[in-house]
Amino acid sequence: MTEATPEPAGPPPASPFDVPAYRVGVVDLLGVLAYGELSAFERLAADAALAPTLADKAALADMASAEYHHYERLAGRLVEMGADPYEAMEPFVASIDGFHESTRPADWLEGLIKAYVGDGIGADFYREVSTHLDPDTRDLVLAVCGDTGHAEFAIDRVRAAIAEDPRVAGRLALWGRRLVGEMLSQAQRVAAERDNLANLLVGGITGSPAGEDGYAGLPGFDLAEVGRIFAQLTEAHTRRLQALGLAA
Amino acid sequence: MTEATPEPAGPPPASPFDVPAYRVGVVDLLGVLAYGELSAFERLAADAALAPTLADKAALADMASAEYHHYERLAGRLVEMGADPYEAMEPFVASIDGFHESTRPADWLEGLIKAYVGDGIGADFYREVSTHLDPDTRDLVLAVCGDTGHAEFAIDRVRAAIAEDPRVAGRLALWGRRLVGEMLSQAQRVAAERDNLANLLVGGITGSPAGEDGYAGLPGFDLAEVGRIFAQLTEAHTRRLQALGLAA
Repeated sequence: MTEATPEPAGPPPASPFDVPAYRVGVVDLLGVLAYGELSAFERLAADAALAPTLADKAALADMASAEYHHYERLAGRLVEMGADPYEAMEPFVASIDGFHESTRPADWLEGLIKAYVGDGIGADFYREVSTHLDPDTRDLVLAVCGDTGHAEFAIDRVRAAIAEDPRVAGRLALWGRRLVGEMLSQAQRVAAERDNLANLLVGGITGSPAGEDGYAGLPGFDLAEVGRIFAQLTEAHTRRLQALGLAA
Repeated sequence: MTEATPEPAGPPPASPFDVPAYRVGVVDLLGVLAYGELSAFERLAADAALAPTLADKAALADMASAEYHHYERLAGRLVEMGADPYEAMEPFVASIDGFHESTRPADWLEGLIKAYVGDGIGADFYREVSTHLDPDTRDLVLAVCGDTGHAEFAIDRVRAAIAEDPRVAGRLALWGRRLVGEMLSQAQRVAAERDNLANLLVGGITGSPAGEDGYAGLPGFDLAEVGRIFAQLTEAHTRRLQALGLAA
């Protein structure tokens, strides 16, 4: 047997994945997205059971199946990265399940709004996050955040319901506001518990100053950006509620 | 305006679809299959919510999504035939929903057995039916009756549960027998209500004697065959229960 020689100090890492904290942060990010998609599948399938017509049921089943295929892509990438998808999802089960338990739709319309508004905010958030990621991870995140047909479907059904009985608008507007509050509180809980994920998003992957380990390409967001992103998310949420015919 | 002239008596129909009763029977058959798949999607997705591990949850979501894609193919064929898939499914909603309501699994294991045993009997039955159909319809029926991974998964999980606690075997065997009884009683109800479907399956599409309208290629089953098919379905059911480690 030949004795292993210590490796010489190499050139600066050519990929952010050479920085261990980046890889761990991406596994966390794909894990939370994957469990989010698997939960979205479950929730849409449960909504399908409440659907008032067979056409609505089939439409919801179609969206649920699309979410499952997003899950498949995320789990597949985790496996490619040498990570166990179930382990990667596990840390996020309690907070995502908690969100769904605290926002159980009382009826079909609340379920539709939750799918549209919730997935809309999630997609906006992950799209912002993706700007700081390596190209492969970014493309995957953008692909799984694509609209699966919720938007048009929900807008159509909710507007029709309000046209039929304008009194439902007040209750549904309240529901829309409650959903955002619950999402933000769960997101804060996740960020507080997952340092690597929080570091991936805010403050960069290498601590400060960025670049000290030779890779400075993914600096994360600074606080001004975080403020701007929250303002954008809120504005987009308001526009979605207006599209539904609801006051934000 | 020109006056419509009565069409001359043409040559014998070249396809069974030229016989109106055949087309109506096939629309019924694809309709009952389509709603069966959409219900299977819903039921498997609900089982996913009960799954004890994330790996089990993802496996059930995968099977549910496969059932949805079967539904998609059946609905697509109905549209190709100029039929409305929702209208085609409607006559079967009450009996299929009734079956699911009268066989609501009490736990995860009962759900797995229902998926495996119920889909197994259904697939055996439709495979027999398909032997009397035109080749395109037959290929579609065989494709959507293919195993979506239930069998191996259910056998593995149920055997493991019995190994851990042999006392569950008695309850689960009873459950397996109840499922068959409920399926048969719902199937009889459907056959009694849907003449065209029953004629497609038993007695041929043209009444008797076959061939009186010029197409004699799809005679349906005679009563001896029906007896043989029921014997085969029962034997296959017994083998499935044995594979699970249960007394039939």
